[in-house]
Amino acid sequence: MSTTRAVVLLSGGLDSATCLAAALAEGRTCTALSVRYGQRHAVELDAAARLAARHGVDHVVVDVDLRAIGGSALTGDIDVPHTDPTSDGDSVGIPVTYVPARNTVLLALALGVAEVHSADEVWIGVNAVDYSGYPDCRPEFIAAFQTVADLATAAAVVDGRSPRIRTPLIHLSKADIIRLGHDLGVDHAATLSCYDPIDGLACGTCDSCRIRLAGFASAGLSDPAPYAGQHSDPSGDER
Amino acid sequence: MSTTRAVVLLSGGLDSATCLAAALAEGRTCTALSVRYGQRHAVELDAAARLAARHGVDHVVVDVDLRAIGGSALTGDIDVPHTDPTSDGDSVGIPVTYVPARNTVLLALALGVAEVHSADEVWIGVNAVDYSGYPDCRPEFIAAFQTVADLATAAAVVDGRSPRIRTPLIHLSKADIIRLGHDLGVDHAATLSCYDPIDGLACGTCDSCRIRLAGFASAGLSDPAPYAGQHSDPSGDER
Repeated sequence: MSTTRAVVLLSGGLDSATCLAAALAEGRTCTALSVRYGQRHAVELDAAARLAARHGVDHVVVDVDLRAIGGSALTGDIDVPHTDPTSDGDSVGIPVTYVPARNTVLLALALGVAEVHSADEVWIGVNAVDYSGYPDCRPEFIAAFQTVADLATAAAVVDGRSPRIRTPLIHLSKADIIRLGHDLGVDHAATLSCYDPIDGLACGTCDSCRIRLAGFASAGLSDPAPYAGQHSDPSGDER
Repeated sequence: MSTTRAVVLLSGGLDSATCLAAALAEGRTCTALSVRYGQRHAVELDAAARLAARHGVDHVVVDVDLRAIGGSALTGDIDVPHTDPTSDGDSVGIPVTYVPARNTVLLALALGVAEVHSADEVWIGVNAVDYSGYPDCRPEFIAAFQTVADLATAAAVVDGRSPRIRTPLIHLSKADIIRLGHDLGVDHAATLSCYDPIDGLACGTCDSCRIRLAGFASAGLSDPAPYAGQHSDPSGDER
């Protein structure tokens, strides 16, 4: 049986780490792809490198400076909010941490890597449940990008071969993702989900940290990752 | 009447310069977008800056290092061919100057800029006639990307607003593009199409130079751009 090769987008956060573990559990030969896009939380790339090394997979890092585009708290001068989004009636909008066209850019880069590596699949850890309101995490967006992938590359034209976009987390809640990662042996302590880390540690109060912590609580597990200040779990173990 | 805002992908080559002129001729308020993607012919970005300045339009430059992906003569260690592609039976394949997923990456970045600038359109100078065999210059690729653009952004979700992808050159031959540019007052001398410039001057022998020179010949015009060596036109004028 020939090997199925996969490019896995790996930010270093909880979801992408689980996505990588799921691809490996399905027997894929993986290349992890991380993108340094000018995110203020670039320390997540260290987490990505740790995770890739731990799993013994190749790790490609591509630089794209989305700061030149702006329009986001993650790349620009807008502050990352540290208030509970459910407390101010703002939770139905698109948060300021949305990065314009980010997942389109990430998938485009993954498509290029997939072509060069003759990969059969591109895995991305988007989810449409606890997705913070990002438009480019929805199934219809992924389906549209699949059509682009089927037409965009030389491999598609010459060999009729294009990577299948895999989104194993798309319909899972954050608690489900955490349970899945736990079952797959994801080292949650090595992941970093924070949008606004303090000295390399998760802040515990940004949207991403709040969603993560609520997910661990809902899953009945404690988060073993280190947090700046009061959110740290002194035990360091997942229950 | 409100202004129609357009983001125009501007490489500094003949086609994108004509595309910008066409957008301006339609009364668009334009933002030119150039992408420094690790191309060996990065001197084309100087041409883009000259063209943007000449037309008095804003110019955004985004860096993305596609060299980390590789797989192309334009970004990697593969040599740019300087033989006539029609002489060796290789003209039906995908040339080594194809950059994996390049136009998908360019359009993704343009989509981000369009969202931040509230642009109504994205213009790209692809053409499917003398397109060198690139898969991501075909109308079906553009149509697929339009569907992505209609779903990917916050603007699409919140306001139902997404930029229309405009491809005014897609069905034109290179000679037609040159004639159109001539009619629109494009400063052809300021453009650079070469894949492998010599001291900032077009080589005259790579695929892109050959297609350009054949296009000028077919249009009954001479190319006013400076070339390294014997292909220079001492008159410096278009006839």
